[in-house]
Amino acid sequence: MDGAVEIIDQTVLPKEVRILRLHTVPALVTAIQSLAVRGAPALGVAGAFGVALAAQVHADDPAALAAAVERLEHARPTAVNLARGVRRVAALLPQGPAAVLAEACRVRDEEIAASEAMARRGADLMIELCGKRSRLLTHCNTGALAAVVLGTALGVVRELHHRGVLAGVIASETRPLLQGARLTAWELGRWGIEHRVAVDSAGPFLMARGEVDGVILGADRICANGDVINKIGTYSHALGARRAGLPFVVVAPESTVDLNTPSGDVVPIEDRGSAEVTPWSEAVNPAFDVTPRDLVTAIVTDRRVIRLDQGERP
Amino acid sequence: MDGAVEIIDQTVLPKEVRILRLHTVPALVTAIQSLAVRGAPALGVAGAFGVALAAQVHADDPAALAAAVERLEHARPTAVNLARGVRRVAALLPQGPAAVLAEACRVRDEEIAASEAMARRGADLMIELCGKRSRLLTHCNTGALAAVVLGTALGVVRELHHRGVLAGVIASETRPLLQGARLTAWELGRWGIEHRVAVDSAGPFLMARGEVDGVILGADRICANGDVINKIGTYSHALGARRAGLPFVVVAPESTVDLNTPSGDVVPIEDRGSAEVTPWSEAVNPAFDVTPRDLVTAIVTDRRVIRLDQGERP
Repeated sequence: MDGAVEIIDQTVLPKEVRILRLHTVPALVTAIQSLAVRGAPALGVAGAFGVALAAQVHADDPAALAAAVERLEHARPTAVNLARGVRRVAALLPQGPAAVLAEACRVRDEEIAASEAMARRGADLMIELCGKRSRLLTHCNTGALAAVVLGTALGVVRELHHRGVLAGVIASETRPLLQGARLTAWELGRWGIEHRVAVDSAGPFLMARGEVDGVILGADRICANGDVINKIGTYSHALGARRAGLPFVVVAPESTVDLNTPSGDVVPIEDRGSAEVTPWSEAVNPAFDVTPRDLVTAIVTDRRVIRLDQGERP
Repeated sequence: MDGAVEIIDQTVLPKEVRILRLHTVPALVTAIQSLAVRGAPALGVAGAFGVALAAQVHADDPAALAAAVERLEHARPTAVNLARGVRRVAALLPQGPAAVLAEACRVRDEEIAASEAMARRGADLMIELCGKRSRLLTHCNTGALAAVVLGTALGVVRELHHRGVLAGVIASETRPLLQGARLTAWELGRWGIEHRVAVDSAGPFLMARGEVDGVILGADRICANGDVINKIGTYSHALGARRAGLPFVVVAPESTVDLNTPSGDVVPIEDRGSAEVTPWSEAVNPAFDVTPRDLVTAIVTDRRVIRLDQGERP
C-alpha cells in the first residue's frame, strides 16, 4: 500500500475502463456513494482498505482517524459487508498501520478465496437444479467488479461456462443505473459467454414463456430467517421464478450473512433520490428490495449450500 | 379532413410538444412503428384516419389503395385495435372517400365516448375495491395521448382525482421507451395529480411495502378467456399485486376485447430489437407480455365490468 486505494470506476464502464487512485477517505466515500465501487464483497474490501488508508493519513490524529472510520462505515446503509469490513479492520487500529493493512489484505484474500469456493459449490447446485444445458437469468452485477475477482453469482455462471453446461445468459439491465446492461454484459462478453440483455420487467415474462431455466443472483444482506436483501428488481424476478416453477438461487459470501438482522423488514433500504431515475418528475427510488425466504430455493455461500426450499436456515 | 392526419409526436415528449402533419400513408406507418403515435385506442383511430387518407390519395388507383390499407393494418402486430380500426373503415371504401372519412370520424367519436364511460365505471369500481383515499400504481401510458381524450386507465385516475378520492399515483417508468416517465408523468402533471415515478422493477416491492392500494393499467388486447396482453412489465406488476393481496384492474374499450383470440399464448408478441434497450449488446426486447386471467381482478370496458375474480369472462 503506497498511500492510495485503486479501483475501476464502474460509473463509466463499458465506454471506458478508467482506474481511480483514491488518496483520501473522503474521495473513497464519494466513490462508494456514487457507485464507482459497488457490490457487497467489493464494498467490504473497499471499506477495509479505506481504514488502512485512514490509518496512514491520520496516524497522528486519533480524532480525525475515528471520524474517517465512522464516515466509511456509514457511507451506504444496506449492504452489511461495508460496515463489517470497516469494523473488522478498525479493531486492529491500536496495533498500528501495518497491522491494519495486513488485516485489510486478509479481508481481500478471503473474498478472493470465497469467490472460488462459491463458484464450485454454486455450479454443482445449478447442475443439480437446472440440468446440463441451462439458460440462466441474472440481475445487477455480481462479477469480478463486485467482488475483487470472479464474483458471486457471475462466478458461478463462469464456472458453468467452463464446465460446458451453460446454454446462455439473460442479463437484466438493472435500472436505474444499468449495472446489468453496462457491467454484467461487459464481463460476460470478456469471458466469451453468450448473453442477451433484457429490461428488468421482461424477466418474469421470459420465464413464463419458457426461455429461462433458473435465476441466479447475489445479495447485499442475508437475514437470519433467510430473507434476502438485494438490488431492486430481485423480488419481482423471484415472483416470476416461483410462478414459472424455476429455481431461484442466491450466491453470496458468508460475510453477507447477517445473523444479527432477524428479517428483511428491519433492514434500512436506501432511497437514492429522483435524479437517478428521471429528470422530469419526483421519483421513489429504493435501491434494494426484500425477497422473502419462501421465494428462495437456495443460498450458496463459500462454506455451504442453504436449502431454504427444504426448511434450512442461515 | 384536408389531406393530412395530425398527431402529437410522442417520441419527443415531455421535452417538446410537436405536432406532426402526416400527408401520406407511409409517413403514418412510420409514425406508428416509431411509436410517435401509440396506445391501443389511439392506434385504432390512427388506422381509421389512415384509411381515409389513403382513400383520398389513391382515389384513382385501387391497387395502390389496397396496398396502403394492407400496410396500415399490419404496421404493428399486437394491439388488436389497429387492424380492427383499419378493417372497419376499409369496409366502406366501395362507397367512396366521404363515406370512409365519416366512418373514421365515428371510430374517433366512439373512442371518445368510450373513454368517458370507462372513467365513470372504473372510478366506481376502484372506490369499491380500494376505498376513498387510494394510492394507485399504473404502468406505461393510458392517458389522452393513448386514447384521443382522457384515456383508459389514466382516465379513471383523473376521474378519481375529480371525485377527491385519489391520494397519489406511482407511474412505472416503462422501459425501454419510458412511456410512464415521459408521457404519464407529463399528463398527470398537467392534470395537477400528485405523482412519483418508479423504475419498473420497484413496483412489486412498493406494493409489498404497503405503499400502493391498487394497480390500474390498460391493455393492447383482451383475449376471450380473460388473458390480458399489455406493455411488457404488466405481468410482473400483476404478480406483485397478487402477492400483496391488491386489486389489479385493467381498463380498455370494447374495441380491445378480441373474442377471436382464445388465450394469450397465441398472440404474436412484437420484439422491437436490441437498439431500444442497449447500445452495448444484443437484447431480447418483447414489447408486450401476457398476464394470465387468474391474476386479474377485473376488466373495465365502456360497457361493463368483468369481474374475473368472480369467474366472469369477456
